[in-house]
Amino acid sequence: MEITLQNILDAANRIQPYIHKTPVLTCQSINELSGIDFYFKCENFQKIGAFKIRGGMNASLSLSAEQLKNGIATHSSGNHAQALAFAAKTLGIKAYIVMPKTSPQVKVNAVKGYGATVIMCEPNQAAREEALQKVVSETGAEFIHPYDDYRVITGQATCIKEFIEEIPSLDFVITPVGGGGLLSGTSLGAHYMKPSLKVYAGEPEGAADAILSFKSGKVEKAPFINTIADGLMTTLSEQTLGIIKQHVTDILLVSEEEIKAALRLIYERMKIIVEPSCVVPFAAALRNKELFKGKKVGIILSGGNVDLTKFSEWFPGV
Amino acid sequence: MEITLQNILDAANRIQPYIHKTPVLTCQSINELSGIDFYFKCENFQKIGAFKIRGGMNASLSLSAEQLKNGIATHSSGNHAQALAFAAKTLGIKAYIVMPKTSPQVKVNAVKGYGATVIMCEPNQAAREEALQKVVSETGAEFIHPYDDYRVITGQATCIKEFIEEIPSLDFVITPVGGGGLLSGTSLGAHYMKPSLKVYAGEPEGAADAILSFKSGKVEKAPFINTIADGLMTTLSEQTLGIIKQHVTDILLVSEEEIKAALRLIYERMKIIVEPSCVVPFAAALRNKELFKGKKVGIILSGGNVDLTKFSEWFPGV
Repeated sequence: MEITLQNILDAANRIQPYIHKTPVLTCQSINELSGIDFYFKCENFQKIGAFKIRGGMNASLSLSAEQLKNGIATHSSGNHAQALAFAAKTLGIKAYIVMPKTSPQVKVNAVKGYGATVIMCEPNQAAREEALQKVVSETGAEFIHPYDDYRVITGQATCIKEFIEEIPSLDFVITPVGGGGLLSGTSLGAHYMKPSLKVYAGEPEGAADAILSFKSGKVEKAPFINTIADGLMTTLSEQTLGIIKQHVTDILLVSEEEIKAALRLIYERMKIIVEPSCVVPFAAALRNKELFKGKKVGIILSGGNVDLTKFSEWFPGV
Repeated sequence: MEITLQNILDAANRIQPYIHKTPVLTCQSINELSGIDFYFKCENFQKIGAFKIRGGMNASLSLSAEQLKNGIATHSSGNHAQALAFAAKTLGIKAYIVMPKTSPQVKVNAVKGYGATVIMCEPNQAAREEALQKVVSETGAEFIHPYDDYRVITGQATCIKEFIEEIPSLDFVITPVGGGGLLSGTSLGAHYMKPSLKVYAGEPEGAADAILSFKSGKVEKAPFINTIADGLMTTLSEQTLGIIKQHVTDILLVSEEEIKAALRLIYERMKIIVEPSCVVPFAAALRNKELFKGKKVGIILSGGNVDLTKFSEWFPGV
């Protein structure tokens, strides 16, 4: 299904009562040291602490009364799980969330806190899908995929709509890329609402599947997975890749050291908490200063749900 | 010298071009779990990352051209040092900052980054004062005390002015108390601008001097010092105690465990970075829920300059 501008505008209206219009922050000292004019769209301050509520809420609100009756289901290690749990609580329906046993405890607790049923599984794709199939066939719940779903992509596209409305003069926007829901939605939104706005993605070297897929034109796997950006380990889908190929300018890689340095900069200079996954675009801009120098660069800070016990790993004591 | 309402209004106008009007944030999940209607005045987003720029800038801008020529000086382990360094840079004058060798590296770096001259000393009061005397007599610089200075107190009072203007219906406001600059300024401002607003302070059990002084009526020392709230270790002065005795309702103690739990709550729920010193008032409200239940409670989140290497101590890994 082709997503239209009207679909995105409808989604924005549909979810508006349930989400925050997140602030866009700037930071003089970061601009001075980088020579780039950064604008940070703070989805870490969003409901559930991440942009994922946009897609999750849009998909849930698109269901018929008949579908709503049986609830919704998904597999997710993180923020999409919270998004569906929150949406289900808001709409007074059931949510069944399959989560790998390795999920950060803070995220499992949050999902349970919203009243969702959590089904733990082994941390691999086959186990996830099997557990999901089982719960869907037992309950009749509607499966809402974390990103391979046009309702989810359309919901994620509402973020760039707000961003362009607030900062119309943006030259670039950079998002992280995991499964490609945010990236495809952002690039579609930019295409419709501000075609001159160039859309980039940042991706960890330790989860470099999207860049391979972008170059080869078909969905590829990462050669290896080793990154603290735990939200970006998934591969693209045919659907997200199709949109990304059409509307994204380029995908930029960053190292683990660059992710940690960017994380430190945001924490120290902006005094806000963000996930490692969500500083990847910022790190990509810092690594490619010549590309963005003197330009207005929008960064979607996609989430802030961190497990505080990880701090000692990211910022080791002296 | 008696500080008048007009002094505070003048200070607000004087410093306005140089400081941020910081946002007031709320957090639905914290309100739900506490049963208190919290409003957080985010001075962690202030210039230099702390409210101290208000007092430092007001004092600096109050100097004559003759005084400015020789620069300004102080002893401070933390945010007041940065405040004067930033003020001096902004005004194009010299700053001499005596800092104990135990100061967090991030704060020493920030002070040097503003171009100030740093003089390191042993971490005790006698060494601080000796080093300061030396630099003042050598340079003729104007000493601006971190809190025992009516210009500084008047500057700190501008924060509650903004807070009351933004949330006129506040029932309570709680600040941290170290030397008492913020607390005395806040209580004076509330007295003039909203006399019904009750002013409390939060103080660590591990630096319990202000509560003793408040009860005895004379400046007392803490029975022992042991707290992660490293900005609250100083004692009151005659001047700050005089104002506090008149205009503060009470001082509430909190334990180290309560400080860490409050810190965790702010980090996890609000996604913002604050110093341990500045969650002490919030921890005090949570400890005294019956006092504040259902009321509008303003918390001045006084600063966000943390040494990230401390995270592993505050939030140990699993």
